[in-house]
This record gives sequence, C-alpha cells and structure tokens, in this order.
Amino acid sequence: MKNFIYDVPTRVLFGDGQVSNVGKEVKKHASKILLLYGKNSIKKNGLYDEVIKFLTEENIEIIELSGVDPNPRIETVREGADLCRKHNLELVLAVGGGSTIDCAKGIAAQTKYHGDIWKDLCVDKKFNLLTEALPVASILTLAATGSEMNGNSVLSNSKENLKLGFNSYILRPVFSILDPTYTFSVNKYQTAAGAVDIMSHLFEQYFSPDKKGYLQSRIMEGLLKTVIHYAPIAYENPTNYDARANIMWASSLSLNGLTSAGKESTDWATHQMEHELSAKYDITHGVGLGILTPYWMEYVLDKENVHRFVEYANNVWGIFGDDDFQVAKKVITKTREFFNSLDIPSTLTDIGIDSSKFEDMATSATRLGPIGTMKKLEYKDVLEILTMAL
Amino acid sequence: MKNFIYDVPTRVLFGDGQVSNVGKEVKKHASKILLLYGKNSIKKNGLYDEVIKFLTEENIEIIELSGVDPNPRIETVREGADLCRKHNLELVLAVGGGSTIDCAKGIAAQTKYHGDIWKDLCVDKKFNLLTEALPVASILTLAATGSEMNGNSVLSNSKENLKLGFNSYILRPVFSILDPTYTFSVNKYQTAAGAVDIMSHLFEQYFSPDKKGYLQSRIMEGLLKTVIHYAPIAYENPTNYDARANIMWASSLSLNGLTSAGKESTDWATHQMEHELSAKYDITHGVGLGILTPYWMEYVLDKENVHRFVEYANNVWGIFGDDDFQVAKKVITKTREFFNSLDIPSTLTDIGIDSSKFEDMATSATRLGPIGTMKKLEYKDVLEILTMAL
Repeated sequence: MKNFIYDVPTRVLFGDGQVSNVGKEVKKHASKILLLYGKNSIKKNGLYDEVIKFLTEENIEIIELSGVDPNPRIETVREGADLCRKHNLELVLAVGGGSTIDCAKGIAAQTKYHGDIWKDLCVDKKFNLLTEALPVASILTLAATGSEMNGNSVLSNSKENLKLGFNSYILRPVFSILDPTYTFSVNKYQTAAGAVDIMSHLFEQYFSPDKKGYLQSRIMEGLLKTVIHYAPIAYENPTNYDARANIMWASSLSLNGLTSAGKESTDWATHQMEHELSAKYDITHGVGLGILTPYWMEYVLDKENVHRFVEYANNVWGIFGDDDFQVAKKVITKTREFFNSLDIPSTLTDIGIDSSKFEDMATSATRLGPIGTMKKLEYKDVLEILTMAL
Repeated sequence: MKNFIYDVPTRVLFGDGQVSNVGKEVKKHASKILLLYGKNSIKKNGLYDEVIKFLTEENIEIIELSGVDPNPRIETVREGADLCRKHNLELVLAVGGGSTIDCAKGIAAQTKYHGDIWKDLCVDKKFNLLTEALPVASILTLAATGSEMNGNSVLSNSKENLKLGFNSYILRPVFSILDPTYTFSVNKYQTAAGAVDIMSHLFEQYFSPDKKGYLQSRIMEGLLKTVIHYAPIAYENPTNYDARANIMWASSLSLNGLTSAGKESTDWATHQMEHELSAKYDITHGVGLGILTPYWMEYVLDKENVHRFVEYANNVWGIFGDDDFQVAKKVITKTREFFNSLDIPSTLTDIGIDSSKFEDMATSATRLGPIGTMKKLEYKDVLEILTMAL
C-alpha cells in the first residue's frame, strides 16, 4: 500500500429532513453567505423556501446567485467571487448537484485568490498556489459527482471550448446535507447518467496497474454492487427511498478519498476523454462516460491487465470461467448491457456526435502528455477509442 | 437507510516513515503535551527516540506517563489527568495500541471534567455530560481496536472488577499516525488476536436484524475479506508490509463510523460478554472474542436471521448451497476453523477459565437489560452461551 494522508473532514448530515439543520451548521462558520443554485427547480419543489426559512431562523444574511449551468462556467465563478468580495461574504452554500458545488468551490477559491483560477489552477494545474478559500457547504440534490465530500471542481470555458478540473484540500465542504428525497424528482435520464458517473468514478480507480490495493478493490466492489443493485430500482421507482439513499451515499464514498487512499495508481483516461466530448457538445457527463467506458475497456484489455477484469467479473457480477479473456469480454459486454438497460446509448452516433471533431478532441485530451495508467493513451489511441465509439 | 451524521475528522498519516510528521502535526494543536505509552517496547524498537526527536525539533514540551496496561485502568487515567492539570498540558499523544489510545481519551476527558468519568460516563453512560476535552492524537503500534479514528474508550476498574466503555465525538483523535512497520514486531499471538478483534467489530455491525444496510454490508464484506486474506500472511510472515498495511487500515475503517453510519441496528452482545471475561480474568480481548463468536453465532441463528449468515457465507467465503441452515452452519464452522488456523483456541477451558464466575458474568453483562439485537440476550442466554463455550 502506498503512503497516504486521509483527511475527509466534511460533516455529512444524511437523511430525510436534515435540511432543518442548515442554519445551525452554517452559523458555526459564517453569518453572511452566498446562496448558489441552478435553475428554478429548487423553487418549484419547495427546497428553496425551506433553506431560506432555516437560514433566516439563525439570522444568516443571504446574497443569492442562481443560474449555474450543468457544465458550470468560469464566468459564473467570476460573478460569484465579485459578489463575495463586494458583500464580504463568509461562506458559499451550494444547493444543487455536482455542477453547483463545483461552481461554489470555484467561487470560494477565486474570492480569496489574487490571480485567475482558470489560468493558474484549471489550465496550468498549479494547485499549490491556492492557499486560502472561503468555506464551502452543500445541500445535494443529485447523486453523481461526489463533489459534496471532496475538494475537486470541474469548470468550463466556452470561449476556449475547454472543460478542466482542479482540486484542493481546502475546498472540501465543511458540511454537506444529503437528503435522498431531494433526488426523487430526478428524471430517468439523469438518474441513469448519475449511476454511470458513480460507476465510472469507481472504474477509474479500480482499473489500474496497481498490483496491490486489495482492501481498496474490495470496498470498490461493494460500492459497484450497491449501484448495480439499486440503480434499476431507482430508475423504475424514483421515490424508492432506500434505492435513492444507497445510491447517494455510494456516490459520496466513491470519490471522497476512501477508495483511492493507498492505491499506487488510478486511471481517469475515460473521464479526460469525456471532458472533451462535453466541452465540445455540452452533453450529459454520465451519458458520455456510459458510451466511452466499454470501448475503453475493450481497447486497454491485454494480457498484463486481464486479471483486473477477471476480478471485476468474479466479485461484482459473479461471472466465472476458465478462459480469462472470455471472462473479461463477457463482463465488458455485461457492463454495456447494464448501461443499455438504463437507456444509456452505446454509440456517439446515437447522441448525434460525428467524427468531425475527433482529431481536435484527441489533441486536447493529450495536450499534457499521454492519459491513463492501465494503458498510456496517446493521441492515436484516443482517436481510435473515439472512432470505436462512433 | 437510517438518518445519520458522519463526521470523521481524524487526519490519518499512513505509511512507513510518517512519524517524521509528528512534531508538525502536534504543533497545529499544542506546545505542551502528555506523552502516554505502555511498557518499554517503544524504547527497545527505537520509536520512543524518534518521537522525542521529531517533537523536540518543533519545540514541543513533553511530560511523560508510561505503564499503561493492556486493559487500561481508571487509576492511570486519574494519574494522567492530574499531570495534565498540574502542567497545563494541551494535548495527549498516545503511542501504542488501542489500550493506550483508550487511556489517552480517558485522560483527555477527565482533565476537563469536574466529576468522575468512571462513574458518570463508564457506569452511568451519561455521555452528554462531557462537553470538552483535551485533543487526543495517536501513533498506532497495534492494529485491532480502531480507537485511532473514533471516540470510543474502554477502561477497567480492578476494584469493581468491571471493564466499561464510553464514547464521545469530541474524543476522536485530531490525527493518527499509522505506520505498518511498527506492527512488524507484534507477536503471532497478538497478531491473531488483533485480526479476530477487527473481524468481531465487523460481525457486531454486520449481523443485525436491520433489513436494509445494503451498502454497509457490502463494504463490511470487503473488509472481512481483506482481514481473512492478510491475517494468515501476517501471522506467517510478520514483516510482510502489505499484509500489515491492509490489516491496519481495515482495522481503522471497521470502527470509525463508516460501516455503521446509516444502519438501523448493530449487535455488540459478543463484545459485552467478552468484556466480562477480560474484566474477571484479564485475558486478551481478541482471544475472548475468537472463542465466544462462533458459539454466539450458533446460539442466535434462527429462521428470521438465517439469510444474514447465508449472505456472509456467499459473499465472504464463497460458500453456497440449497439449504440455508446447512450453509449457515458451514460458515460458522468455517469461521471457527479460520480462528483456529491462527491458533486461537475454541473453548474457555483451553485458556484456563471454568464456570465458577459464569453467573456473576451473566448478571453483570445484562445489568442494564438484555444485550444484542440479532437475538436479545438475557441472563439465561448469556449463561447458556458461556456454558457452550466451556
């Protein structure tokens, strides 16, 4: 096991009705806050009114910023940071899915940062330059990105056609409220995309050349089984509390550091390729991942790593067999069929994407060098995987 | 899933050589500390010198208290609290196994508490009375109790022949250094006992009437598989780093809240029975657990809960079959055989315990009412299980 620091201080308040604690939790950190959200859905379902009520009960002053996009834009981050500076706000409270929380982290960082976080953090990856930030907190309404318990943020720059991530320990939310009932209204399409996103986070960490990481693999298999068990239930019956709860908590645990701490390597090539797709076409992240993942698996599979696929087949799907490659191919097919069962398409053509930007995307994905670790993917490899997925 | 708060702020520094950070980590919280340890083993293996060196480099003032017993005594807690008050110490740093860390928590609590923690917390279980404590930190040298990431403490009172636990969120260590190489010198007997203790913590949470807890069960199965895979390796080859590392991290994750958060119920009857054994006979906790666990399983098994044992058989041991009760009995036998393979005996007679104090122990174990949830055990049930284990 590799040396690691595990430091996950986010206080999670999980379950039906936990929003009633939001005022008290905020009060521990701030008296004037930026309330950040996306479109009007939280006003329609009553969550907005509840949040305002419980914040007001604790005399929290609130400045609002709404309209965060599904792929949150750096312009919104700048607007939010201006508001925080102008009003001396002390905390950014995101109410929404991963996009809103990612945007809140951008705002929290930019508010205290003298340079431009897009250039220094997202593009140049100089994460160490960020030494302070406003505290971030969240009320999660969509299980997918894990942003509610980690310091990661992915932002989009439409002018540059780029979607880039950064991360910092100081951006881990101080608290996150996870109420599964808020995800009852998530539609089938987003429920499926969220489930794929969670599974992809696990695949990116599970599939690696790391010869060790036994404990981490066993935990990830447990989380994969949880999503595979409950995603079809939530898909068919959106108000099944237990399904929504298991998926929501699995999502947070899949990307809060628990599953990667101690691993020698992780992959993340599929995410980097997908970021190119959603930067160019603004598609739903989980759908892009669902299309690309099985092709990536087929492309990287070789005799060095076939045991990883066998382990996945045995321990997650109960698929066994004498021929390792046949078992591996079976489980890749099984994975694609599972995504299809949630109406996730199998090809880029299905979602209206043609090959016209493949070369651009392959160039952009590998601009800092080869991506991934299971197999190091260069320009031609990325181009090949995109072409397979056509 | 039941509503829960997950709040595990302990910063874990894991891996070979992390002790070099102890001074810097302490400095964040304190400049004068109590250094608490057990016998002379940390002086023999050089750890004591290293700790002193790295603390001194950061100008930390140190008052020492050594001689913590394997079942830490309330008298040591009182002595430590007197030292902390007298010298205005600001943090208690435990260097040792779970006993030393438990003792450090007792000292940290008693120092700031005006009453007697033995009476109010251990005996009367009025945990809410504890509102402040010194910060606790640890350098772990034995993987077993999970004390390094939680707020639990178990103390012994030899005058009253009692071993009682208490817990408080405010006693969770601010940081813990987990270096698997410190466990290389743990002998076979303690290595086996530690592995059983970790597995027992998982059993106490895994086996419950809780109809839900899917995610939690899958994670616990992963942790059980990890201990089952690596305990025999560490037992045979005490300096196998990866075995020691996986066991150490599994130990922390098995009792830091991760596996119980969201569960509707847990059991803990076996632990309560074992505390009677080690209070009366001062035996090693993990050995007591290893003897009692299979008998407890046999005693509580019934048609309401047989599915739990089948799940355990299928997912942890790969034991399948058509008859649920046969599968359950097979996996109980398998569990006992596994313990035996680590030279953990199967009966109380094997460790020199006769039935003379069984009635006392059964009375004491159930003094606050029935124990456990899989089956609520009253006086006569505890007596029966102890008799089966004879």
